[in-house]
Amino acid sequence: MSNPLHHIGYLGFDVFGTVVDWRSGIARASQPFLERHGLDVDPFRFADEWRALYQPALQTVRSGERPWVRLDLLQRENLETILARHGADFATIAESELADLNCAWERLDPWPDTVEGLTRLKTRFPIGPLSNSHIAGMLHLARFGGLPWDVITGAEIARSYKPQPQTYLKSADVVGLPPHRVALVAAHNSDLQAARACGLRTIFVRRPIEHGPAQSTDLAAEHEWDIVADSLIEVADILGCPTL
Amino acid sequence: MSNPLHHIGYLGFDVFGTVVDWRSGIARASQPFLERHGLDVDPFRFADEWRALYQPALQTVRSGERPWVRLDLLQRENLETILARHGADFATIAESELADLNCAWERLDPWPDTVEGLTRLKTRFPIGPLSNSHIAGMLHLARFGGLPWDVITGAEIARSYKPQPQTYLKSADVVGLPPHRVALVAAHNSDLQAARACGLRTIFVRRPIEHGPAQSTDLAAEHEWDIVADSLIEVADILGCPTL
Repeated sequence: MSNPLHHIGYLGFDVFGTVVDWRSGIARASQPFLERHGLDVDPFRFADEWRALYQPALQTVRSGERPWVRLDLLQRENLETILARHGADFATIAESELADLNCAWERLDPWPDTVEGLTRLKTRFPIGPLSNSHIAGMLHLARFGGLPWDVITGAEIARSYKPQPQTYLKSADVVGLPPHRVALVAAHNSDLQAARACGLRTIFVRRPIEHGPAQSTDLAAEHEWDIVADSLIEVADILGCPTL
Repeated sequence: MSNPLHHIGYLGFDVFGTVVDWRSGIARASQPFLERHGLDVDPFRFADEWRALYQPALQTVRSGERPWVRLDLLQRENLETILARHGADFATIAESELADLNCAWERLDPWPDTVEGLTRLKTRFPIGPLSNSHIAGMLHLARFGGLPWDVITGAEIARSYKPQPQTYLKSADVVGLPPHRVALVAAHNSDLQAARACGLRTIFVRRPIEHGPAQSTDLAAEHEWDIVADSLIEVADILGCPTL
């Protein structure tokens, strides 16, 4: 391979938005719940509102305001916040319904190019999530969508949330590599920027409808990332991975 | 499935001896090294001696005598101990040779039934190593032998070595399950005994030549384990996993 990534020993992937379509999946899972409980809110708006609380919740951990907790707990708190905002009557909602809806984050469809792209990349590189999700969430999501990970790295391994350096550095460490031999694959410029600051190589994949048809962020590479592509299949092409 | 393991949500595997044949692999990798350096020791004996230092080295960490270190460092120290015992002249041995020989633990053949058994088990259960190896070692071994793990659990996740309870309990915790919904698959009665004491289910696989033709330990189940089998294929049969 004649490219700047020939020395790469591990590809770590951002997952929500980069590998899977969280917005459609959360909307799909929320719709029957919202209808059942007479909550008059569009399921996609519900998904967007739930997701909007994601970074602020992570920030409470990053800042040290609260001790390390896994993502599923934060997502669950955020779910209850959003439901309360829309006037949900918690007395009529079973605990099992909330637990099940929270697990919607573990049942999200891969983008159409994801499984083929990952499968091809895996022929040449070890691959794994380098996500803010907890390990069990990534395990369940992989089995739901057929994501052929070799290992699960990311926030829980490091007990820190991206973009904190420790998340990238510890992920490289556990796969036995220095940072410059790891590449982050992500649809978010800020994630790649933080990874680069830690010495990782950077692969940007455009996901222009992650946030729906009106998406205004991350539509283009904002820095000179090592690779810029429109799909994981294109990343596999660029890295010279054989077709299936 | 009408068996006591129908509620199992994760199968964690002991690896050295249970999943792969470490003795043949270490002997194979050691032979050219020993010849090159004029060390007159049978490669299988060399493998046995190297392995014999494994538990004592782990014990120094378990006891708190030294802080947590990964298995590859302990194996490397043990390698140098054995070489010194056989009169190796370290002035003539390149660092890269030692590093490469130490990586022999990441290039061990699976037993003949392993890949088929794991592949079948994976259709019904998430699977992963629950080993004393470090994560990178398990990652490399999996790619060498085609072991289709979903996740890597074990000592490094827990920062403790089996049979310490934390190793089993933390492995269950990161896959999101209570101990009784995890089964340990192992060829060693003592490992299963410790796992059972933590509440895990237990699957014993006989590996009567792990230590060579004269093996005298772990030839039979010493307790009433939930499953006793002669191969991972038989485990898959007992658990009702479809054939490939």
